[in-house]
Amino acid sequence: MTASKGPVLLTPGPLTTSDRVKAAMLRDWGSRDPAFTRLAGEVLTRVRALAGGTAEEHVCVPVQGSGTFAVEAMLGSMLRPDERLLLLVNGAYGRRMAEICRRLGRPFEAVEVAETEAHDPAALAERLAADPGIAAVAIVHCETTSGLLNPLEEIAAVVRAAGRRLLVDAMSSFGAIAVDISGWGISALAASSNKCLQGVPGLAFVVCRSDELAARRGVSVSLALDLEDQARALAGDGQWRFTPPTHVVAALHEALQELEEEGGPAARLARYTANRDTLIAGMARLGFVPALDPALQAPVIVSFLEPQEDWYDFSTFYDALESRGFAIYAGKMKALGTFRVGTIGAIDSLVIERFLAAAEAVVTELKQKLIR
Amino acid sequence: MTASKGPVLLTPGPLTTSDRVKAAMLRDWGSRDPAFTRLAGEVLTRVRALAGGTAEEHVCVPVQGSGTFAVEAMLGSMLRPDERLLLLVNGAYGRRMAEICRRLGRPFEAVEVAETEAHDPAALAERLAADPGIAAVAIVHCETTSGLLNPLEEIAAVVRAAGRRLLVDAMSSFGAIAVDISGWGISALAASSNKCLQGVPGLAFVVCRSDELAARRGVSVSLALDLEDQARALAGDGQWRFTPPTHVVAALHEALQELEEEGGPAARLARYTANRDTLIAGMARLGFVPALDPALQAPVIVSFLEPQEDWYDFSTFYDALESRGFAIYAGKMKALGTFRVGTIGAIDSLVIERFLAAAEAVVTELKQKLIR
Repeated sequence: MTASKGPVLLTPGPLTTSDRVKAAMLRDWGSRDPAFTRLAGEVLTRVRALAGGTAEEHVCVPVQGSGTFAVEAMLGSMLRPDERLLLLVNGAYGRRMAEICRRLGRPFEAVEVAETEAHDPAALAERLAADPGIAAVAIVHCETTSGLLNPLEEIAAVVRAAGRRLLVDAMSSFGAIAVDISGWGISALAASSNKCLQGVPGLAFVVCRSDELAARRGVSVSLALDLEDQARALAGDGQWRFTPPTHVVAALHEALQELEEEGGPAARLARYTANRDTLIAGMARLGFVPALDPALQAPVIVSFLEPQEDWYDFSTFYDALESRGFAIYAGKMKALGTFRVGTIGAIDSLVIERFLAAAEAVVTELKQKLIR
Repeated sequence: MTASKGPVLLTPGPLTTSDRVKAAMLRDWGSRDPAFTRLAGEVLTRVRALAGGTAEEHVCVPVQGSGTFAVEAMLGSMLRPDERLLLLVNGAYGRRMAEICRRLGRPFEAVEVAETEAHDPAALAERLAADPGIAAVAIVHCETTSGLLNPLEEIAAVVRAAGRRLLVDAMSSFGAIAVDISGWGISALAASSNKCLQGVPGLAFVVCRSDELAARRGVSVSLALDLEDQARALAGDGQWRFTPPTHVVAALHEALQELEEEGGPAARLARYTANRDTLIAGMARLGFVPALDPALQAPVIVSFLEPQEDWYDFSTFYDALESRGFAIYAGKMKALGTFRVGTIGAIDSLVIERFLAAAEAVVTELKQKLIR
C-alpha cells in the first residue's frame, strides 16, 4: 500500500501534499509533552497571523475534525441564542450553515442567490438597513460547490458600516486568498489544515475576536465544539482539552514553514492562479466550458459543464483519468451538470499540463470507442 | 524535526506506533476516490468485527476528531430527549459524560463511586429495579483517570436483564480487552484509533445497533456529530459526509493489519499484561506504589502514588525521564496525588525494562542532588 504514491489529486482537499509535509508525520508526539505544546502553539500563532489577527485581539482555536466541525463550532460558540443571523448562500456550504443553525435552534434567515452569482454588497447594505434585528452575517468566502469567490472585503465593509458582526467560512480560500480579519473587522473565520495551507486533513480552526468569544461563554450546547472552553484551556496551560491529531499538527507545522519559504500567500496565490489559467485555457482547447463567469472564478477549483455528448459519462471519464494518474472531483452544483478540477496543493502548471495531455488522450479514446 | 524520533510514549495515547503504521501516511488519498472508500470501508468493517458486531445488526460510524467527539456523538445520537440516562461514574471520563449530557439537556443522573473502586453490578441491579424510569445506562470500560477496569460483562448482563440499554466508552480498552456487543447486548460502544488499536490520533468510532440508531433519526442537535445521518450516508454511497482524515485512516488500516498479524486482541492483551506486570514489579523495587488494588488494575495505564519525599517533583521527574527517552503522563485522580505510566502501544516488556533502568537512574540522581 505504501509503495504506491496514488494519483495526483486535482481536488479541493484533501489534496496533493509535498513529501516533506508527509515525512513530518514519521514521529510520534506525546500530546501533553512540552515539545508538542510548543509545536502546536507555533501552528496556532502562525495561522492567526495568516488571518490578519493579532495576539491582543484574536485567538486561533483548534477544532479536531473536518472543516464542517469548525464551522459548526463557530456558529455554536460565536452567537448567543438571541442573535439573529443573516446567511448569504450561493452553494452547498452556505446551505450547510443553514442546516447547522436549524439544528442548533439559532435564529437565522438565508438570502440565497444562484450558484453562478456572487453576493452583492449593495443589496446586503439595503437588507441590513431595513432590518435592525439582524445581529450578524455569515458567508462562505470561496464556494467550493462551484469555485466562486464572494467579494469578502466589500461584504465585510458593509457589515462593519452597519454595525453588525461577520462570520466567515474561509475553508477553501485560506492560505492563498488574502484575508485581514483585523483590517476588515471580521468577528470569526473558520479554516482547515488540508486546503490552501497544504497540510493533511484532520484539523480545522476558528480565528476569532477574543472579547466576543469570551462574552459568549456557555452558549455552546456542545462540549467538543465549544470554542470558548477550548480557548480558555489554551490560555491556561496551553493544552488542548481533548487529544489533538498530533501527526496532522506536525504535518501542518511543516506545511506552514513551506508556505513561508514559498513566499507566503501572495506567492501561493500566483502559483494557483497560473494553475487555473493553464487549466481553463487547455480545457477550452478540448471543448470544455467552465460553469462560472471568469470574473467570479477563484483560483481554487473550476467547475466544468459536463459535455452533452454520448462519449461522456462522469464515472468512465473519472476512471480513465485516474488510470493515467489524476483524480478529479465530482460536480456539486444544483442546476448544472458539472465536474470539478482543483488547482490547489503541491502542484504547479507543469502538472496541469500533464493533466491536460491525459485529458486529451482520454477524450480521444472515449470518442473513438464510441465510433467502433 | 523529522530527524528526531522523540521519546518512547508511555502514555494512554497518542502512543508509540510502529514505523510501519506511520509509513502508511506517506501517500495522499482522494477522500472521494473509490480506492479510499474501499480502504475506509475495510477499516469500519474490521472495527465492527473487533467489537463483536455483525453486518446484520450493527454499524460502525466514524467520527472525525478525538474520542470525546465520539462519546458526545453517541450520547447525542443514541438517546431520545426523553430517555433518562444513568451514568456510572468513577473518574474524569465518567464525569465528562455527565458534562456532555448536561449541555445537551439530556436527562441523566450519575452514580459516583470512588476512583479506586469499580462499579458493582449488584448495586446497579437494585437501582434499576427501583427506578423503572431509567431508559439506559452508560459506563466507561477502562477509566484512564486511574487505570481501573470496570466489570463490563457483568454490568452488561444486569442492564440486559433489566431490559435497559447500555452505552459504553471503551476508549482505552478497545482492541486489547475483549468486548462482545452482540453477546453482551450492548447498544453502542465508542472507541478511538490511537489507543490499543495502535493507530495515530484523529479518528474515533461508535459501533452501535443499526435499528436503535435508525429509530433515533433527527435527535442529534449537532450536524457534525450526528451518527444517524453519517450512517445513512455510508449506507447510501459509502461516503463520509465531511472530509475524513485520510492519512489517519490509512495508518489505522495498517494498524489493524498489524493487530491481526500479532494474533488479535488476545495476543495484544497478553503483551500489555506482561508490560504492566513488568512495570509494577520493577517500580515496586524502586519504592513506587500503585494507586489501585491489583484486582482492578487494567493492563493499559498504571497510576502510581507520588512519593511524599523531598527529591520528588513531577515536573523534574518528567523532564529527567524524558531526557532519557521516555515520556510518562501526569496524574488525574481527584483525591490522590499520582503520576501515570502507560503500558500500551508498539512496546514490549524489554522497553519497560529499559524504562525501569532509566527510572532507577533518575531516582538515584534526584536523591543525590538533594544530598549535595
